[in-house]
Amino acid sequence: MFDIAQIRADFPILSRQVNGKPLVYLDNGASAQKPQCVIDAVTQAYSHEYANVHRGLHYLSNLATDKYEAVRGTIARFLNAPHEDEVIFTSGTTEGINLVAYGWAMPRMEAGDEIILSIMEHHANIVPWHFLRERMGVVIKWVETDAQGALDPQAVLDAITPRTRLIAVTHMSNVLGTLVDVKAIAAGAHAMGVPVLVDGSQAAVHLPVDLTDLGVDFYAVTGHKLYGPSGSGAIWISRDRQAEMRPFIGGGDMIREVTRDTVTYNDPPHKFEAGTPGIVQQIGLGVALDYMMQTGMAEIAAHEADLRDYAQTRLAGLNWLNVQGHAPGKGAIFSFTLNGAAHAHDISTVLDKKGIAVRAGQHCAGPLMEHLGQSATCRASFAMYNTRTEVDALVDALELCHDLFG
Amino acid sequence: MFDIAQIRADFPILSRQVNGKPLVYLDNGASAQKPQCVIDAVTQAYSHEYANVHRGLHYLSNLATDKYEAVRGTIARFLNAPHEDEVIFTSGTTEGINLVAYGWAMPRMEAGDEIILSIMEHHANIVPWHFLRERMGVVIKWVETDAQGALDPQAVLDAITPRTRLIAVTHMSNVLGTLVDVKAIAAGAHAMGVPVLVDGSQAAVHLPVDLTDLGVDFYAVTGHKLYGPSGSGAIWISRDRQAEMRPFIGGGDMIREVTRDTVTYNDPPHKFEAGTPGIVQQIGLGVALDYMMQTGMAEIAAHEADLRDYAQTRLAGLNWLNVQGHAPGKGAIFSFTLNGAAHAHDISTVLDKKGIAVRAGQHCAGPLMEHLGQSATCRASFAMYNTRTEVDALVDALELCHDLFG
Repeated sequence: MFDIAQIRADFPILSRQVNGKPLVYLDNGASAQKPQCVIDAVTQAYSHEYANVHRGLHYLSNLATDKYEAVRGTIARFLNAPHEDEVIFTSGTTEGINLVAYGWAMPRMEAGDEIILSIMEHHANIVPWHFLRERMGVVIKWVETDAQGALDPQAVLDAITPRTRLIAVTHMSNVLGTLVDVKAIAAGAHAMGVPVLVDGSQAAVHLPVDLTDLGVDFYAVTGHKLYGPSGSGAIWISRDRQAEMRPFIGGGDMIREVTRDTVTYNDPPHKFEAGTPGIVQQIGLGVALDYMMQTGMAEIAAHEADLRDYAQTRLAGLNWLNVQGHAPGKGAIFSFTLNGAAHAHDISTVLDKKGIAVRAGQHCAGPLMEHLGQSATCRASFAMYNTRTEVDALVDALELCHDLFG
Repeated sequence: MFDIAQIRADFPILSRQVNGKPLVYLDNGASAQKPQCVIDAVTQAYSHEYANVHRGLHYLSNLATDKYEAVRGTIARFLNAPHEDEVIFTSGTTEGINLVAYGWAMPRMEAGDEIILSIMEHHANIVPWHFLRERMGVVIKWVETDAQGALDPQAVLDAITPRTRLIAVTHMSNVLGTLVDVKAIAAGAHAMGVPVLVDGSQAAVHLPVDLTDLGVDFYAVTGHKLYGPSGSGAIWISRDRQAEMRPFIGGGDMIREVTRDTVTYNDPPHKFEAGTPGIVQQIGLGVALDYMMQTGMAEIAAHEADLRDYAQTRLAGLNWLNVQGHAPGKGAIFSFTLNGAAHAHDISTVLDKKGIAVRAGQHCAGPLMEHLGQSATCRASFAMYNTRTEVDALVDALELCHDLFG
């Protein structure tokens, strides 16, 4: 059973006040808060069970290695990945997508080759491809969303040409909440021989992800948005794509043998994991994912769908508020502006005085903001621990903004 | 005053037992344990002060950003760096050296250009340069140590040719403990127009580092060896070298503007820091460095010099033990083998039964092991919290090994 009171009690920061008001944390799209079990796991690791992994034969090293490596299986279960060795630990989605850009794309692309992106991509799924444009002459092709903020899978497939080498799309927009049908995109793209990379930073937080069903090639997630520690994360890469990749970061652990004149590499996934990893962060991420799975991904999704519906209704009652993105089945992420002169930053400052944390700005999504004709928006993004009462608090504070700036 | 009892009390893991014996942790070269103040800082951050940095305008985001960015200054003070904006946050030395390889070296080197390495380098300071050899035809030139394990700075300078583009050397060997005169190398190399990268992973743990005095170009450190969290670290890069670099990891934060067709980059050091960083890890690293500075780097170095001298004397009494590396002024790091058939792994297993954690293997230093004619060694590496009593425990356990395997 999804017990919202218990869940809220599990997150110590939710008991604090901000500016004399109870914290209403609606900046989950930027990063989520951490349950006590994750904090405790980090403390336990550093206080009693810490050593470097893979490299020692002593008790603490073996203990840390066992706990760290077990997280690979936890991530595989969380994403229903076909094989555990397809999970590569990263410091987050940014590193994961750069791994694909440097390790898979750069060695196999040439000037004039094309990469298809949606206009909704986060900079983490844009800038690595701009590197290929700047350095190699690769061409980026953009697919726009419709007036509702939805992305038609067929529009993505229609952009494929004989020069298309990759489609890189988000599973859920961090600005609009739009859910993308990446299964349909992967099916169509594979029929034309084009691999698909998915930025799962947002979607994996809010929905059950089934990689065995989706059939994509690359799927990146970031731990700090999944209620885990900062600096944790992973990218799932199919065995076939891993076999095509050269290593990205060089150092210890990812090699088999190093001599003066030669280097041979470890087997995947270790081939793509160099140096001492984020040992304790990944252990904490494993605990976070177990917490999510115990809570139930379907139950989390249902709770957030209720929040989304309630927020949609309440925000629709503010006829001076412009909400961006109304795609069917969207996540509980709302970007908005106010009619009139009020800047998004001013709105977020007023909300902050009421204890409500939202983000204001471009949300690391420059091309989308240009497409929407916005220089900046406010964004309220919900998580499993948010409530209808918090939606009401947001609406009350927005009404105050309207009074102040309207 | 350096109070060893108080220091040991500050590290909770040192109170635990392993295999029924008090833990004697001598695997500090692989990773150091964490003081309670670091663990508490991590807990505090996640429990009460967590949000993403740089991107929000709300209270928690500002708080986290202030605490995170303040660590840049702490690292600059710790290393006596000329300018705080020369400190770039990384996940550790491996990422730092890869940043230099990809961001500075790759765009400016050609086939036949040369990089000089010492034979003592860790794989983190070898494999990134093998990438340049494999992919671009860059030539790696090796400078060997003498019979004591010392590195003559003049031998490094003598290896410079008109094709030399970089010298990359460790400040202290993780296997031999050899301290390298990187100041002399930098002075001589700069006179010939060659920049110098220093792997400070070990040295910064054991000695006061003064970058203003050393005059090198790049200096990488790793937080988990500095009593800080896993996944923390930094590389110091002089403003002149930063100005020559292109970005490495692409994503949020490191850009100024992203459009469909263009990207412009943020100013250094942010230009080299992409995506959500290791927020809480770096906050913890700042606390760890403050702890070291409050304890006193000179006092730590003096304590470890005493441990080194005592260990040298006691180990020299074991005439069936072969210690590798006797360079004057070496750090308290001892790699050794036993006469006869005992493998390093068997020795470490026996030591582990006595609660003593050492490392056995190649220590991520393949070329050095080849140079030494060793397939594997045991390594006992000391930290500020170790004691003469622990040296005695090591010697007693080694005598047991000699009885068992001798």
